[in-house]
Amino acid sequence: MNIKLAESYGFCFGVKRAIKIAEENRNSATYGPLIHNANEIDRLKNDYNVALAEKLSDFRPGDTAVIRTHGIPKEELAALKGKDVNVIDATCPFVTKPQQICEEMSAEGYDIVIFGDDNHPEIKGVKSYAANGAHVVMNVTELEVLQLREKVALVAQTTRKIEEFNKIATFLIPRHKEVRVFNTICNATFDNQDAVRELAKEADVMIVIGGKNSSNTKQLHSIASYHCPDSFHIESAEDLDASWFKNKQLCGVSAGASTPDWIIREVVDRIGALSR
Amino acid sequence: MNIKLAESYGFCFGVKRAIKIAEENRNSATYGPLIHNANEIDRLKNDYNVALAEKLSDFRPGDTAVIRTHGIPKEELAALKGKDVNVIDATCPFVTKPQQICEEMSAEGYDIVIFGDDNHPEIKGVKSYAANGAHVVMNVTELEVLQLREKVALVAQTTRKIEEFNKIATFLIPRHKEVRVFNTICNATFDNQDAVRELAKEADVMIVIGGKNSSNTKQLHSIASYHCPDSFHIESAEDLDASWFKNKQLCGVSAGASTPDWIIREVVDRIGALSR
Repeated sequence: MNIKLAESYGFCFGVKRAIKIAEENRNSATYGPLIHNANEIDRLKNDYNVALAEKLSDFRPGDTAVIRTHGIPKEELAALKGKDVNVIDATCPFVTKPQQICEEMSAEGYDIVIFGDDNHPEIKGVKSYAANGAHVVMNVTELEVLQLREKVALVAQTTRKIEEFNKIATFLIPRHKEVRVFNTICNATFDNQDAVRELAKEADVMIVIGGKNSSNTKQLHSIASYHCPDSFHIESAEDLDASWFKNKQLCGVSAGASTPDWIIREVVDRIGALSR
Repeated sequence: MNIKLAESYGFCFGVKRAIKIAEENRNSATYGPLIHNANEIDRLKNDYNVALAEKLSDFRPGDTAVIRTHGIPKEELAALKGKDVNVIDATCPFVTKPQQICEEMSAEGYDIVIFGDDNHPEIKGVKSYAANGAHVVMNVTELEVLQLREKVALVAQTTRKIEEFNKIATFLIPRHKEVRVFNTICNATFDNQDAVRELAKEADVMIVIGGKNSSNTKQLHSIASYHCPDSFHIESAEDLDASWFKNKQLCGVSAGASTPDWIIREVVDRIGALSR
């Protein structure tokens, strides 16, 4: 039996990059969780002595602070630097972009609308770069009650859906002289979905790895099942069952956006052993 | 019987302004038809000696050229000025705006998309201000085949519908890093429609004045008829019939976008005489 990984799976570009940066900075501490994955944070602590600091006051002059993928508010970054902390920025470049846009558009006098979740760390960071404040909305209903100026700049949380973003834009366009729409949505989630779909079409058994309550992993498993009925959602190599691979030609493997590579490698090795 | 004019009717702001400018410049010539209305052009010729010049070569040094409401291409304006012609600009300010936007966005390196009709004088003028050219499209089908850069600026012909403009914008947003949407649509046509609707609700007879083949006048008459069954579409005072006003309390009057004020005044005077 052959084993084939999806073209795109698991961690996105920004998460992989942040982990690499953390690994290169032994004995540092991340300010807040580096990524949304507790296993990976434990591994960085155990293997690289990269600690997790929850408060600004945890840092002392000379310490090294790694900024997490979602970024942090501008004032907090300035406070760290002001304390002579050595700051290593692991903010995803796709998150740095909307931060810069907010800073520039605010300076140019645009009213800023951010399509996203006000409580998400990414948005807290992005919003902080709008010197004159920004309006964070999740839908048109929240937008309707706002009094906005003639010129509006619109950005999106990186993980939002483009169709919903377009709804926000088409509400604004008839009501304003200028709407400057920055498409800051990242395609990583959709890339994994496209890839699992393609692989499931040719595979006769599919393994999708990720937390049982990870919504993006469940979504991947659902897409896989549609094209390949023998699709299984597992959390680790221990969940595998030899019977699944009997008389199969091609086993496809994918993983959710919060699944570390080492778990995926263990699964692939075990599938190889079970199907021999 | 009372007679009431709609809140908004007849010529739009830009056309009224252009006529006033022409009247203030006796013995001049407009370059191309000042507005899309032959009667009014004849009146300006007869009463103010404002001629109609079709070609650049018709102008000689010292002549006065009135630029029409739809504007003219940038090169032609420069050519007129280069000949020492005295240029009086009657371009509608709502048309000057997209011209300026094209000039600025082109200088800032945006790829420019104009939603409108490539053969319309307004668009010929607007497009000429895009130093590096602009793409003129009437729908998404025409847009799909274009190769555009990451940063796109979008403007509209002033008379287009906002719903169609939004369709162009929502096609572009997912495909580009930045779409700078300038809502250059003018509401004049819609203002006349809103006003005739309100007036027809309270009137018991409605008179709508305009050419029998003027599509916007027919539209106004259709709206009036929906709310006031006794609605009549006429071209001039001669078409009025005394029987229409028998036992009526309120006669509402509106007019299409190409109906001059003097025709409207004649109609109102005649209705007054007939209903006395």
